[in-house]
Amino acid sequence: MQYKKFGNTYMLRIDVGEEIMASLKAMCAQEGIRLARVSAIGAAEGGAIGVYDLAEQRYHREDLEGFMEIASLAGSVTEMNGEPYIHLHATLADQQNVVHGGHVIELRVGATCEMFVDTLEGTVTRTKSEELGINLWTF
Amino acid sequence: MQYKKFGNTYMLRIDVGEEIMASLKAMCAQEGIRLARVSAIGAAEGGAIGVYDLAEQRYHREDLEGFMEIASLAGSVTEMNGEPYIHLHATLADQQNVVHGGHVIELRVGATCEMFVDTLEGTVTRTKSEELGINLWTF
Amino acid sequence: MQYKKFGNTYMLRIDVGEEIMASLKAMCAQEGIRLARVSAIGAAEGGAIGVYDLAEQRYHREDLEGFMEIASLAGSVTEMNGEPYIHLHATLADQQNVVHGGHVIELRVGATCEMFVDTLEGTVTRTKSEELGINLWTF
Repeated sequence: MQYKKFGNTYMLRIDVGEEIMASLKAMCAQEGIRLARVSAIGAAEGGAIGVYDLAEQRYHREDLEGFMEIASLAGSVTEMNGEPYIHLHATLADQQNVVHGGHVIELRVGATCEMFVDTLEGTVTRTKSEELGINLWTF
Repeated sequence: MQYKKFGNTYMLRIDVGEEIMASLKAMCAQEGIRLARVSAIGAAEGGAIGVYDLAEQRYHREDLEGFMEIASLAGSVTEMNGEPYIHLHATLADQQNVVHGGHVIELRVGATCEMFVDTLEGTVTRTKSEELGINLWTF
Repeated sequence: MQYKKFGNTYMLRIDVGEEIMASLKAMCAQEGIRLARVSAIGAAEGGAIGVYDLAEQRYHREDLEGFMEIASLAGSVTEMNGEPYIHLHATLADQQNVVHGGHVIELRVGATCEMFVDTLEGTVTRTKSEELGINLWTF
């Protein structure tokens, strides 16, 4: 990956074979980013997304193979246990033009991923909700 | 819902059972927001989206049941008749991993909705186009 | 199209029958915009999107007819050969409520397109990758 800062916004290029969640987390750790809005487009090659099941408190995982367009990728960087916490959702179009969508579990870059990371000043942490099984924004 | 302002950006957490359009409108009314860009991810439980039919000047409504990931949610706050006017489009992934998309008519939060509201200074109103049947941005 | 600047952000309304890529490029040329993040919603009537084939180094083109909601549209303005370079990905919902997604080749506005163009100071160019066949962000 390569990145550069323009005002409060980082433009991040994630390269072929790099995993998107890990790349963004590494950049946030390097740059001390703890609060940001994230949006991106690009292309992926393999990954897994999920749709949450509230009753079972787990994600139904959908493994995706092959080369796909990242039609949209959006979410946030917040903080949990002193570390940057990445939460992204995506829509992906596969070689058969079928669109998949959901919570990003892992996603490897297929050609390039072009990401904007708009940093904000301040802190938002995550607190686990026992009722929901997910980590909620805590102000 | 809960929210907090960071610079010109509000981070808004909308909670289980709350309707997203109404929650955002209420926040805008409380905070005096009349112009903003909106983007969010999260999870919904039931709602309705629509695809416009220009010939009939109405939305083909698609009612959605069950728990869904909000893969993307984007739009704007402008002003019409002195009130905040919310316009959002969404892509949603259901429990069968099928993706739905369109104009948001109503959408109830299923687990959490994590929204960024980037306020802008100025005013953009809406004017009804009789030809199109929709309310257009008016500068 | 019509547009107005609010701080560092342009709000751009693209009108019925106008092509979105060309309209945005024309606005960037007029306003001297060379670096920006782009996000929009709206409705389209016809267009073409593509999913890249890395082995063949070309897009599998999907022609789309009829009126569609633009559920999401996102990307960037950078610079290549001294001109604004537009790169957008979209998700589109058709009259049968089927969602299509991918790289925008061309997209004509069906009712209105409501776009935010957040300008950044600085320059990012594009360099052709012979290995990938695409033009990568170059810092």
